Amino acid sequence: MVLGGHQIVVVVAPVAPGRLPPRVPVPPPRSFLRTIGASLRETLFPDEPWRAVAREPAGRARALAALRYAFPCLEWLPAYSLAKLRADVISGLTVASLAVPQGISYARLAGLDPVVGLYSSFVPALVYTVLGSSRDLAVGTMAVGSLLFASMLGPAAAPAAEPEMYARLAFTATFFAGAFQAALGLLRLGFLVDFLSHAAIVGFMGGCATVVCLSQLKGFLGLPHFTHDTGLPAIMASVFSQTGQWHWQPFVLGCCLFLFLQITRYIGKRKPKLFWVSAAAPLVSVILSTVLVYLIHGEKHGIQSIGSIKKGINPPSIHSLLFSSPHTWLAAKTGIITGIISLAEGSAVAKSFAMAKNYHVDGNKEMIAFGAMNMAGSCTSCYLTAGPFSRSAVNRDAGCRTAASNAVMALAVLATLLFLTPLFRHTPQVALSAIIASAMLGVVDLRAAARLARVDKVDFCVCLGTFLGVVFASVDIGLIVAVAVLVLRILLSVARPRTTALGRVPGTTVYRRMDQYDTARGTPGVLVLRIDSPIYFANASYLRERIARWIDDEEDRIRAAGEESLRCVVLDMGSVASIDSCGTKMVEDLKKSLDKRRLQIALANPGSEIMRKLDKSEVLQLVGDEWIFLTVAEACDYAQSNCKVGTGLQSVASPDEMV
Amino acid sequence: MVLGGHQIVVVVAPVAPGRLPPRVPVPPPRSFLRTIGASLRETLFPDEPWRAVAREPAGRARALAALRYAFPCLEWLPAYSLAKLRADVISGLTVASLAVPQGISYARLAGLDPVVGLYSSFVPALVYTVLGSSRDLAVGTMAVGSLLFASMLGPAAAPAAEPEMYARLAFTATFFAGAFQAALGLLRLGFLVDFLSHAAIVGFMGGCATVVCLSQLKGFLGLPHFTHDTGLPAIMASVFSQTGQWHWQPFVLGCCLFLFLQITRYIGKRKPKLFWVSAAAPLVSVILSTVLVYLIHGEKHGIQSIGSIKKGINPPSIHSLLFSSPHTWLAAKTGIITGIISLAEGSAVAKSFAMAKNYHVDGNKEMIAFGAMNMAGSCTSCYLTAGPFSRSAVNRDAGCRTAASNAVMALAVLATLLFLTPLFRHTPQVALSAIIASAMLGVVDLRAAARLARVDKVDFCVCLGTFLGVVFASVDIGLIVAVAVLVLRILLSVARPRTTALGRVPGTTVYRRMDQYDTARGTPGVLVLRIDSPIYFANASYLRERIARWIDDEEDRIRAAGEESLRCVVLDMGSVASIDSCGTKMVEDLKKSLDKRRLQIALANPGSEIMRKLDKSEVLQLVGDEWIFLTVAEACDYAQSNCKVGTGLQSVASPDEMV
Repeated sequence: MVLGGHQIVVVVAPVAPGRLPPRVPVPPPRSFLRTIGASLRETLFPDEPWRAVAREPAGRARALAALRYAFPCLEWLPAYSLAKLRADVISGLTVASLAVPQGISYARLAGLDPVVGLYSSFVPALVYTVLGSSRDLAVGTMAVGSLLFASMLGPAAAPAAEPEMYARLAFTATFFAGAFQAALGLLRLGFLVDFLSHAAIVGFMGGCATVVCLSQLKGFLGLPHFTHDTGLPAIMASVFSQTGQWHWQPFVLGCCLFLFLQITRYIGKRKPKLFWVSAAAPLVSVILSTVLVYLIHGEKHGIQSIGSIKKGINPPSIHSLLFSSPHTWLAAKTGIITGIISLAEGSAVAKSFAMAKNYHVDGNKEMIAFGAMNMAGSCTSCYLTAGPFSRSAVNRDAGCRTAASNAVMALAVLATLLFLTPLFRHTPQVALSAIIASAMLGVVDLRAAARLARVDKVDFCVCLGTFLGVVFASVDIGLIVAVAVLVLRILLSVARPRTTALGRVPGTTVYRRMDQYDTARGTPGVLVLRIDSPIYFANASYLRERIARWIDDEEDRIRAAGEESLRCVVLDMGSVASIDSCGTKMVEDLKKSLDKRRLQIALANPGSEIMRKLDKSEVLQLVGDEWIFLTVAEACDYAQSNCKVGTGLQSVASPDEMV
Repeated sequence: MVLGGHQIVVVVAPVAPGRLPPRVPVPPPRSFLRTIGASLRETLFPDEPWRAVAREPAGRARALAALRYAFPCLEWLPAYSLAKLRADVISGLTVASLAVPQGISYARLAGLDPVVGLYSSFVPALVYTVLGSSRDLAVGTMAVGSLLFASMLGPAAAPAAEPEMYARLAFTATFFAGAFQAALGLLRLGFLVDFLSHAAIVGFMGGCATVVCLSQLKGFLGLPHFTHDTGLPAIMASVFSQTGQWHWQPFVLGCCLFLFLQITRYIGKRKPKLFWVSAAAPLVSVILSTVLVYLIHGEKHGIQSIGSIKKGINPPSIHSLLFSSPHTWLAAKTGIITGIISLAEGSAVAKSFAMAKNYHVDGNKEMIAFGAMNMAGSCTSCYLTAGPFSRSAVNRDAGCRTAASNAVMALAVLATLLFLTPLFRHTPQVALSAIIASAMLGVVDLRAAARLARVDKVDFCVCLGTFLGVVFASVDIGLIVAVAVLVLRILLSVARPRTTALGRVPGTTVYRRMDQYDTARGTPGVLVLRIDSPIYFANASYLRERIARWIDDEEDRIRAAGEESLRCVVLDMGSVASIDSCGTKMVEDLKKSLDKRRLQIALANPGSEIMRKLDKSEVLQLVGDEWIFLTVAEACDYAQSNCKVGTGLQSVASPDEMV
């Protein structure tokens, strides 16, 4: 028999059966505390974060390693060189040229004073330099987070009417986001972020970007008022109810700037060496439009400018935090939702960049860094910051070597805050709108969506559902759609595990799925089923019914084909990772109901956890040691030679006889 | 090599490698709609309910089969005989003798007029006779449901102060419970009930029973007032704040009756033939105590009686249902919670009895029957009914043959309603308390808890946590504890699947877990890992990190032992039931990072779904057809002869070189 380039000859010679030692040993008992300890360790510390620390000899070296673990900057600082400094300065300045216009734009998107956007690129970036373990991440505010702030906090305090109260709410929400992120990291619950699937994130981000783009019509058309709702219908209603206020001048200027930004982005994408063209484009467009507006007296033509920006570094805001206001719960909710979304984006960016450069990023440590930078930020007039993809990609393309590029960026922003803010007084709002719209177009990841549609239609539905929910209803509804679909998917996959019938590949002892391999043949009188999931409360009752249906189907088939009647059911337990008390009960019930049908049950290849639980629940004794096998092949051969023929189908009591 | 009674000789002879057909074929593409259809069918109709209908030839026979499917009574009616009628009459009358005192008791427990308890044993039982598919289930009110009604609806309308409003709320909640149950059944979402694990139910029921027992101190001590809270502290405070009102007379009477009930229960348990002793005991104790109280003028001795009970059959209550009251939402919540709990108990009872008698009960059809009987009940002055275990066990022990025993019981209750209710006027409340307390002692399933402690400590913790939550906090908190623990358990099992390293059992081609089988030996230069779970968004990122850790560990071990360096990682995909887009991305990332470490990746035994998704996402092309194998043994042999030695560990770029 030739199978995939190898000739496999298998000879199975039965040895005289008798009182044999168990084929699959029952492992020695293990204390409950040790089991729980091991499983908690695997759950919370799958990456063994103390590995590097524990490797060092005890004493000073280990203390240093622990310090290096707590402050990742100590890992790269000792080996820091002039060459690295030069690279970090170049990338830091490049990112800063992007950070200043983006910071101002996103702060306006969040309904905050533009200068808060600049503050947010200063303190958090310094914190991340010390605590961050990614070399490529560039810290800054994110558009989706800003949109969520505006849409969630807006109803409690209108940014235009109560700017101070709104800012206090935003700082409080930032604090909660940071506290939540740090708590997740410290409790090592980072895996919760994994439950937001890639598909849901693509759809959610795309939906948010679309909504953000549309809401930029305010700037493009020079509208004085605008809705705070995020749905497409509300935005369109707001735009078309003010047709009398539309201005063509900002629209033309905006379109020109947008075109300029798109062209430079295209150049940067096509020629990675010209990354600085796209990175500097927003700043260039701000400067050009500011000069133009200043020269032509833009306000006379309906082009609104952003007005004066305060000079000076971050003022403290720790006393502005609201911990006992009626809106505290709203701020906490906003913080938790935006915190988890920014984590999902930030850790995905950090991990994918780390993989490309072959270094390791500890997700939980990243969360602590994010949490620290947001908590520090909330006390120094910053709002939510994370590691947005676009900015980090510029950072990487500019050749950054360590997290120090964030410090360089922070210093450049500091210089802007101290000396350059008056220059932005005449910057037209439409320039910021163009920058936002252009950045958001890059967030709509059509290629990822197309890939999903090709590879996995279910994922594509999740993505599309989330997208449509965000665009046509609201950001919250989109999020609820996504979470509901994901939870439902997990529950379904848990409640309906796969069971498959196996057959022997001719000439081997290999048993494979008969629906996959045409050559696999069933063993006469034996039905081999494989269960591909842990057996526990969520699926035990389904599995019991499904196995009964397999047997019914097989008996129907045998009756129709006139073959040898069924004598034994072999369960391949090789992929059953665990079993609980409902699971052992299921096996017990199965054994009893097969007894009633005069069928023998055999278990092949149960794992040690399974053997332990079956033994303790005395189901092993019920099934009998001699019906536990190492391989399916052995089980089938043993069953064929040891199950009496003729005790099968024909002697099954019909339901009517039992009444 | 002798393994479990079989000598297995395996010869693996490599055939000259070259351009070979793929070992694991990529299945032909299947349309998305067909895939979705198949998986929906498997999810919603795992038991193929139309099987019996579809088997019949089209036309009249099939229509009859469909009718039989919709009305299970048509299955047993045609074959109904005098012998069966005799058995059903005996069991029906036996159950009725239990149903009358229990109905009165539980209705009082629920805060309702005692006659409502009698009504509830009439109409719903008739409905179940027509629609129910279990032969053993006896319909009636349940203690836990009654307790939940009192504790959830009580705060909105005190039963003592606003009895009419309270009754309307109770009927409305019953309607919602029925509608919810029927909806679950019609939408075939019965599997949701499976998520309430056996352990949680044991703990919850035990906790409720304990609380119910304690609250019977009101009757035993003859207290005029009592708390509506369900927690142990509230009940104890209520009892000990009224020490001045304690009476010894009801206490002595209650203890005597309780003892009598316990002794008869014990007899019934020891000698199943004397089942009627325990079944008739509540009625006997009611009659005896009523006569006694009547003779000694109990009210003079502080023994409260239940007072007059209305004569006549169920009045309609359809106009009492509250669909637009401020409390409608509360009634709906109560209905949904009690509905799902009564389903969990009812379907478990029906299924376990069916299994013992070897007939099949369709869980979803049972739900429709439960829903119909509760909806019909809510329109005829009944409150929540289900199939309680104790009553069904009496029914079975009394030898019932079909659901007709429920009709007999209903008729007996009807006779009571029409003629006998005045006789209960002097029945002492303490008699009902003794009946409830005695029944509840049977619900506390210490043996099940002990079994859980022995077999599965985690399940025992779930059980204990739920129990303590119910007893010391409240019924709601206990339920929340249970659901939270169960959801967390599912999420953890999904997020942290098991990965194990495999080794070859000497002299065979069988690969088994090295942590389970001491004889299994690793293949030099090859690391074989098995993943025991679907690979999808919830665990893809964990698996990536965990596999990296396996490789790090293996390289550490090899370095320490001075063995041949690692050249290939074989992933046994045999138990990976499905993969989504995050999963294919994980395999792609893994391939890329192994390339960076100069390690080869090989996949063994991927299922057809996996092959299809890997092919569509082009990961298959990245890995290479020649690295996909049917068995682990082939993969290892091929890797050993085709991976170049010396490209392993030593040439991996150290992280520092990459900076």
